Amino acid sequence: MNAPVTYNGLEVGYDIPAAPGMDEKDIQTPCLILDLDALERNIRKMGDYARAHGMRHRSHGKMHKSVDVQKLQERLGGAVGVCCQKVSEAEVFVRGGIKDVLVSNQVRDRAKIDRLARLPKFGARILVCVDDIDNVADLSAAAQRQGTQLECFVEIDCGAGRCGVTTTQDVVAIARAIDAAPGLKFTGIQAYQGAMQHMDSFDDRKAKLEAAIEMVKNAVAGLKAVGLEPELVSGGGTGSYYFESASGVYNELQCGSYAFMDADYGRIHDKDGRRIDQGEWENALFILTSVMSHVKADKAIVDAGLKAQSVDSGLPVVFGREDVKYIKCSDEHGVVEDPLRVLRVNDKLRLIPGHCDPTCNIHDWYVGVRGGKVEVLWPVSARGKAY
Amino acid sequence: MNAPVTYNGLEVGYDIPAAPGMDEKDIQTPCLILDLDALERNIRKMGDYARAHGMRHRSHGKMHKSVDVQKLQERLGGAVGVCCQKVSEAEVFVRGGIKDVLVSNQVRDRAKIDRLARLPKFGARILVCVDDIDNVADLSAAAQRQGTQLECFVEIDCGAGRCGVTTTQDVVAIARAIDAAPGLKFTGIQAYQGAMQHMDSFDDRKAKLEAAIEMVKNAVAGLKAVGLEPELVSGGGTGSYYFESASGVYNELQCGSYAFMDADYGRIHDKDGRRIDQGEWENALFILTSVMSHVKADKAIVDAGLKAQSVDSGLPVVFGREDVKYIKCSDEHGVVEDPLRVLRVNDKLRLIPGHCDPTCNIHDWYVGVRGGKVEVLWPVSARGKAY
Repeated sequence: MNAPVTYNGLEVGYDIPAAPGMDEKDIQTPCLILDLDALERNIRKMGDYARAHGMRHRSHGKMHKSVDVQKLQERLGGAVGVCCQKVSEAEVFVRGGIKDVLVSNQVRDRAKIDRLARLPKFGARILVCVDDIDNVADLSAAAQRQGTQLECFVEIDCGAGRCGVTTTQDVVAIARAIDAAPGLKFTGIQAYQGAMQHMDSFDDRKAKLEAAIEMVKNAVAGLKAVGLEPELVSGGGTGSYYFESASGVYNELQCGSYAFMDADYGRIHDKDGRRIDQGEWENALFILTSVMSHVKADKAIVDAGLKAQSVDSGLPVVFGREDVKYIKCSDEHGVVEDPLRVLRVNDKLRLIPGHCDPTCNIHDWYVGVRGGKVEVLWPVSARGKAY
Repeated sequence: MNAPVTYNGLEVGYDIPAAPGMDEKDIQTPCLILDLDALERNIRKMGDYARAHGMRHRSHGKMHKSVDVQKLQERLGGAVGVCCQKVSEAEVFVRGGIKDVLVSNQVRDRAKIDRLARLPKFGARILVCVDDIDNVADLSAAAQRQGTQLECFVEIDCGAGRCGVTTTQDVVAIARAIDAAPGLKFTGIQAYQGAMQHMDSFDDRKAKLEAAIEMVKNAVAGLKAVGLEPELVSGGGTGSYYFESASGVYNELQCGSYAFMDADYGRIHDKDGRRIDQGEWENALFILTSVMSHVKADKAIVDAGLKAQSVDSGLPVVFGREDVKYIKCSDEHGVVEDPLRVLRVNDKLRLIPGHCDPTCNIHDWYVGVRGGKVEVLWPVSARGKAY
């Protein structure tokens, strides 16, 4: 039998789209590539910002789902730990050696609560959110069963309209119940305004955040009044972190998308009316795709469709090209308008995904590139971990 | 250290959402579940149809990406083999023991062509599509390098507007080139009308298929005239298979979604004006989700968001319930309207995904259930294999 297609002894194709040492042009597409230089600049920049503003930065691992990217955020960007959204993600990050893990979400199923309460045994600080006083007894019972401590944030719904309570009275009542429950510690407040992060206008985002900050300030005052001053007040995303940092009440940020960027975030504006992908953050994440058919005069067919990306926030944008445009997406195909017929079969394009989080969750690997060469392959460690 | 959460000795959560023998109510959500009774009925029904109409059925594995489901389609439904869209999928199906594998797509990258040309060595018949005469020499060279034979379909674009040629002249020219090329065999025609499968009206779909069948008939006549009668004429999907079967020119079907169904296909109508999910096919695939927060009066928050499904073809539909409605989706949350407040935290709902193919491609496991119990766990074997 003839030799397989290998690079550096790794069999490319069967389980991996690329191998370290390969030329970028030989990568088997479609796959996710990371521009390592841009990624590292983004990570250092957010680290510098947080340090300069006296904020902790708990980087959001729900975006990248990668132990390797998280460790880079801790090493280069001073991130204090990770937040994630599911117990199965927390399990992966704890197994991967991350020591401070917040599940910034509700955990209600009894088996899931038990899984969560086991994690401190692996040497990690584990935090979880609570928005219902009925949850407190279940969390406490599991922590006692497992002989561990769970730290709890009370979640405030400051505008996202999902989980979270909306009154200071509810915040205080839940915090008191946590404080009184064996095995639990009341640590602070989760207040992430998820619904405004993608608003284009800086002033619109500012107005939404001012309302959120007001709610959080009231809640903190209410907690102080009963002797439960929160150690951490956590929130803030790529579209808002400067508001939380200037609030005087938040002390922990939870940014995720800044590290990779995507087309939807790229379209929002900073305080000077400039797109945030034009200076504030760099595109570090791309879907690498190849032209696989060009028998139509003005349209090239590329190999990245719905199985290579999520289009919930719009189609991808071709990076660095004004002459061609990705206009349509089906399961395995993308249609790229090529009016000048500049593309040839096997030409490669870098696509900026519409929405990074659910796009990363489709792929098994990040192919890290630098200077035209594949440098690393990082598994999307918590890919598919939604339960 | 306390015992982990186990069922039948398997550690649930870390890598699997369920284990055989569990009650359905203990499954860790969100995850994909298959109603095995409904799945088996769908598969037998399509098998009976194909047999009664003298058609081969090459089931489309791009939908389920599962060696186990494919084997069930062959065993219970008489499927003759699989079609898939990517070389990496073909590698998985061949490794899994499937003996007749069509890549119903173009393969142009040199390393990919080599990977494809290796596969016959594993005992499988391998077919691939061609829409560009320039591809023939590359395929031939690879087959000769590997010492194998690749069978080729010429792909006709009969309305989908993606890959494929549009004239009989081009079909004949490419077929002749294939026929003359060492290591290649001209086997037939690929003519799948992908753009009409989801049109609601039976008559609209019929009109589109009539145009497609006309193109295919012309191409077959042109091929016969040069002594290249195709052995196989392949195409047809869940929204059209009866047209191809009655055409007198197609002899192979490529249906995929019929086995699982989804909300988007469910909305199309049969010849009597009835939705096809009301009698023709049963919903066998569901996203199982749990209520995780219900602190808002009329809205329950469930744990299946964009990381559990693709919403490219619309939001999921709650199966068997008129009283609640899934109205909004973010990364990890779904908002379910619950005006009568009938839902409680930890209640489970079965969601019919908007679009099955890209939804299956997100998950690692199918949890097969029957009679309220988990019966099997099947890996989504070719999940993420897009390259």
